[in-house]
Amino acid sequence: MSRFRHLISIDDLERDDIEHILSKADSFVEIARGEKSSGILEGKILANLFFEPSTRTRMSFESAMKRLGGEVINLGSVEASSIAKGESLADTVRVVSGYADCIVIRHYREGSARFASVVSEVPVINAGDGAGQHPTQTLLDLYTIKKEVGLKNLRIALVGDLKYSRTVHSLIKALAHFGAEMLLVSPEALKLPDELKENGSFAECDLEYAVENADVIYVTRIQKERFPDEEEYRKVAGSYRITAEMLKNSSAVIMHPLPRVDEISYDVDSLPNAIYFRQAFYGVPVRMAILTEVML
Amino acid sequence: MSRFRHLISIDDLERDDIEHILSKADSFVEIARGEKSSGILEGKILANLFFEPSTRTRMSFESAMKRLGGEVINLGSVEASSIAKGESLADTVRVVSGYADCIVIRHYREGSARFASVVSEVPVINAGDGAGQHPTQTLLDLYTIKKEVGLKNLRIALVGDLKYSRTVHSLIKALAHFGAEMLLVSPEALKLPDELKENGSFAECDLEYAVENADVIYVTRIQKERFPDEEEYRKVAGSYRITAEMLKNSSAVIMHPLPRVDEISYDVDSLPNAIYFRQAFYGVPVRMAILTEVML
Amino acid sequence: MSRFRHLISIDDLERDDIEHILSKADSFVEIARGEKSSGILEGKILANLFFEPSTRTRMSFESAMKRLGGEVINLGSVEASSIAKGESLADTVRVVSGYADCIVIRHYREGSARFASVVSEVPVINAGDGAGQHPTQTLLDLYTIKKEVGLKNLRIALVGDLKYSRTVHSLIKALAHFGAEMLLVSPEALKLPDELKENGSFAECDLEYAVENADVIYVTRIQKERFPDEEEYRKVAGSYRITAEMLKNSSAVIMHPLPRVDEISYDVDSLPNAIYFRQAFYGVPVRMAILTEVML
Repeated sequence: MSRFRHLISIDDLERDDIEHILSKADSFVEIARGEKSSGILEGKILANLFFEPSTRTRMSFESAMKRLGGEVINLGSVEASSIAKGESLADTVRVVSGYADCIVIRHYREGSARFASVVSEVPVINAGDGAGQHPTQTLLDLYTIKKEVGLKNLRIALVGDLKYSRTVHSLIKALAHFGAEMLLVSPEALKLPDELKENGSFAECDLEYAVENADVIYVTRIQKERFPDEEEYRKVAGSYRITAEMLKNSSAVIMHPLPRVDEISYDVDSLPNAIYFRQAFYGVPVRMAILTEVML
Repeated sequence: MSRFRHLISIDDLERDDIEHILSKADSFVEIARGEKSSGILEGKILANLFFEPSTRTRMSFESAMKRLGGEVINLGSVEASSIAKGESLADTVRVVSGYADCIVIRHYREGSARFASVVSEVPVINAGDGAGQHPTQTLLDLYTIKKEVGLKNLRIALVGDLKYSRTVHSLIKALAHFGAEMLLVSPEALKLPDELKENGSFAECDLEYAVENADVIYVTRIQKERFPDEEEYRKVAGSYRITAEMLKNSSAVIMHPLPRVDEISYDVDSLPNAIYFRQAFYGVPVRMAILTEVML
Repeated sequence: MSRFRHLISIDDLERDDIEHILSKADSFVEIARGEKSSGILEGKILANLFFEPSTRTRMSFESAMKRLGGEVINLGSVEASSIAKGESLADTVRVVSGYADCIVIRHYREGSARFASVVSEVPVINAGDGAGQHPTQTLLDLYTIKKEVGLKNLRIALVGDLKYSRTVHSLIKALAHFGAEMLLVSPEALKLPDELKENGSFAECDLEYAVENADVIYVTRIQKERFPDEEEYRKVAGSYRITAEMLKNSSAVIMHPLPRVDEISYDVDSLPNAIYFRQAFYGVPVRMAILTEVML
């Protein structure tokens, strides 16, 4: 029995559901690495409806599906599709749900994944809907933390754009289930909105303090578009950048949802603190856990 | 033994061939729904050569192939291919026929599918060649009719653009084999050309009469480009639009090749008359029947 | 045991390695034709990172992988990927190497495949890096020669753009291992650079002599961009064009890396001399040999 038919928002999951997915993911790690084979989703078809570009999310869903013996069909570029002819999202979803056993959707409009789940005849997984939700990212973030440092008594620093980052907002809500202590490190203009501080323990600090005291440093990109001019942006972004020098005496692990641009210096990559590429890999077993949950 | 090596035009098929495909499709419905599995095309590769965009047709061919254990390779976008470097269609087809067991081609130029079948070393299936043919659409339309209301003593109303719609023209030719009675409902400027009325029984009527008397209402899009101005278009299109109100006392089923824009009101979707999403799904078992016919 | 972990340049291979791949390719021909099935790469995933368009190379890698039971994931269009967001090649490769068992990369910048192999956690195969290398093309060229006329005592004419053609340069280096005699046929402005004549036997001649005396005529495209004006180009290109008339008394086989534009007249296609479509097909068994070499 599945615990959920669709996966639209991390808010829909209880702590218990999250733990279930995380421990299920554990059982898929070897298969995700290609060290063991599986045919558990043989005969199943996943339809990727990406109305917005994505490398990582789409490719890791495909890898997850195919490593489990399933198959994938892609909508392809939106310009080359019926959507360009004026077809509604509801019609596209309804038609495609006749071709597949599950739909993964990424859409630029908030709420569209929920809407898709209402009209679809098969399970729908939200792979990001605009400013809305991206629950599989949150689950892989949680899995990474659990696997690398543990979710118990966690002290995590969130660094960068805490105002607009969908990833950070979702992670905060999810971590509330696990009683994490959250350190907030951001420029004045990109502070975490107050309404997100209702559940959990929050404290503001600077990057230096975070590096010394946190178990995990979760870095997000500061986008140029948020600043009035290029110079202001460069000044701010520069002071929230992680370097190897900074981590000399730190045992904190560094996470990043990727792609990174400048937020983490390349000299960090070879340090044991750097776990962001492993984090990206964990997307595969976590998505395997989700795909099997909704399809089997 | 295959009844045909290539599928280029519905005109190439005898009534007997059509019935063979339709009853074969019946045997694939459960597999198409994912309720039963099959490996009948295992080891086979289908090459999709879509020189023009298509969501529905391409994805349902992929779903059909993969549900039967086969694999698919895609030409990808034409801009990103050798065609952009000036390669001829013949060369592309010849090369790709060395990589696959079957080619599905959609091309903007009428006659190109037939041409491809001449140079290809593997079977070619026409997925639409410009103003020409789209035989797998016709076969799935016939299958839908057979399945939902039966092909015997059929009275079908064809609504919308009867002058230019390739879909309608092919369907009319195919229905002639089954002695269907055809009601024609179209604006003056988009009437069915006389040369298409040679075989079968035809009568013009209005939408109201069609709704009351037909077993099937087959709706097609009226394209803006056919009209001198926006206002004229809106007036005409509006009067060929199906609404739930209109169907209150009708048992006619509504079909549409999709994508729809405005021709069928969304309030029709929840009525038992609406079978257009099922029609789209039937594309999968019908294409399974065709793929196995040419490859096995 | 694999003879090489990555395949970046033909120069990295000894004659012995080349012969090993060629004879391995032999054992895959029936599977490549779809006459025999194989599951030797079942459970394996190939990631295609094509930063530049390619029809032939990408599709034949996909066909090779899928005919052997493996699966493929594609980066998709670069505009629609994280690269557009400013991600470095190193990051993309590192992340994708967590999703797959092997990476095939094509990139517009020379040296990028080598660079990718350094950061990747899985084997990397170079599918062309700008003006650099395209070793799988060279191996399929060699395989075609071996299969069709034999590599011993070979006299091969290289026709067209010998100055810039990456394909020709690599082929020359590889043929040096086998003691081939090379006839050079090119316009003055597009002659083979002297530094490439260090190993092997070279002689310049005209097209007529080549047709009469060579075992193989390897034709490459002369690109318009190399000439100051259109007229100059047309005059030169025309005099290096192969026609059926020219081959009346010749037993030489004609090869071409494809796509061709004008270099070989279409009336050559039906002659027994024309082996360029077979050559394209041989890309499949050769790539099967390479894929299994690095992954098993």
